Amino acid sequence: MDLGYDGTDFSGWARQPDRRSVEETVDNALQLALRLAAAPGLTVAGRTDAGVHARGQVVHVDVPRQPWQEMQARLVTRLNSLLPNDIRVTSVVAAAPDFDARFAATSRRYAYRISDEQAGVDPLRRRDVLWSPRALDATAMGEAAALLVGEHDFASFCRRRDGASTIRRLIEFTWAREPEGLVVARVVADAFCHNMVRSLVGASIAVGEGRRPVEWPAEVLGEASRSSSVMVVAGQGLTLEEVTYPPDNQLAARVSQARSYRGTRQL
Amino acid sequence: MDLGYDGTDFSGWARQPDRRSVEETVDNALQLALRLAAAPGLTVAGRTDAGVHARGQVVHVDVPRQPWQEMQARLVTRLNSLLPNDIRVTSVVAAAPDFDARFAATSRRYAYRISDEQAGVDPLRRRDVLWSPRALDATAMGEAAALLVGEHDFASFCRRRDGASTIRRLIEFTWAREPEGLVVARVVADAFCHNMVRSLVGASIAVGEGRRPVEWPAEVLGEASRSSSVMVVAGQGLTLEEVTYPPDNQLAARVSQARSYRGTRQL
Repeated sequence: MDLGYDGTDFSGWARQPDRRSVEETVDNALQLALRLAAAPGLTVAGRTDAGVHARGQVVHVDVPRQPWQEMQARLVTRLNSLLPNDIRVTSVVAAAPDFDARFAATSRRYAYRISDEQAGVDPLRRRDVLWSPRALDATAMGEAAALLVGEHDFASFCRRRDGASTIRRLIEFTWAREPEGLVVARVVADAFCHNMVRSLVGASIAVGEGRRPVEWPAEVLGEASRSSSVMVVAGQGLTLEEVTYPPDNQLAARVSQARSYRGTRQL
Repeated sequence: MDLGYDGTDFSGWARQPDRRSVEETVDNALQLALRLAAAPGLTVAGRTDAGVHARGQVVHVDVPRQPWQEMQARLVTRLNSLLPNDIRVTSVVAAAPDFDARFAATSRRYAYRISDEQAGVDPLRRRDVLWSPRALDATAMGEAAALLVGEHDFASFCRRRDGASTIRRLIEFTWAREPEGLVVARVVADAFCHNMVRSLVGASIAVGEGRRPVEWPAEVLGEASRSSSVMVVAGQGLTLEEVTYPPDNQLAARVSQARSYRGTRQL
């Protein structure tokens, strides 16, 4: 399943008692749509935090063959009629046997959007854009970001979890000022450890405001343990835009590689 | 004053008893910011209907000289700290003596945004984009729109008001499919009569869905009285993007011309 959501009014992807989560909302809609005895349980590509949005989130789910075959053609329409309008399912297809939304993914792409307009954020974009009260130098931010690209131990930008590697391959990290004035990051990696995008953005903002030199985020990276000098910015500006997968005949190899490399407890 | 707002949670620009209006919210904030005994009263360029948004709304207001001089430098920041985050004031300047936000305007530019994705509207754009469950032919819509440009009596696209002319100069009316997939109208006129943009959009959608031929909106225009066959679409997809004014030395002439031409009871 491909889906998008406005994360503003959710406590994040993950199901939590007495909180509105994307996972529970979608899982329940799927149970209703397929008339299952219980919610089927979802595996997601990117477990987004509270307030984080998605346009290209990917989920896999195992369901009984019969309701799937009966409902398949109408399932997108049926799910969207059951879901609140801050979640939309954009497509549902039968996955290859080895497909795994989380471990088969070869890359995740996020965007982080900031407005440094003195007056504040355009009200029509206030849900997915962070406001910076200080003017940002997008060129300096882009130079700082370029120094981080490559395979590194991102421990200084991650919340540590026992038994899990913090080595990641940062495939792309750019900052640009768009024609409408927003300062936007494009961040692509094979996977992200917890808080990684928001820490990378926090370090970039320190450079963009002129509080730190262009080389500083790369120096923090060299420290190889979590740095208290790096601010983790709000989830509000963050959107998961796209997840990519290998061809079907390479899915099994990719899953096995990602599981052994990152550890099963890692996102 | 230049301002923008997300019209979703307002009953429109105009003050109404027991309803949340943009006018009352801004007027009250101005009273507080300048510590006036009463709300000063606003004159607006475009009296937007319920659910309609603005990025380039313009307002003028007469205020006592002393609080203005004391507060001027901090007024944008002060107003935005008092306003809810679905309204932002982007600038406040002293206007020329003959300035009139409504009658001095030489053009208003609106955008109307539609998604015809089968799955529905991207949740992050659901507040300012209308969903069309049917696929739209943006090229046909553009051809139909081009036939309406020019000075005409738009009575067949207007809600009639006694004593007011419905002759308007439609300066630009285009439809285009944007790279991200939205079908977007750009509509510029010297002024709009009530419901005019939303009726023009409704007629365009009938063409875009293939229910009417490209020539049909121009035929309706020729009828010169309100047509019941034209649907007035929801305000949700409509945003006032920009209002233009002549140089200061032509303001008085423009105001006098617009007042006599359109009648003072017309928007």
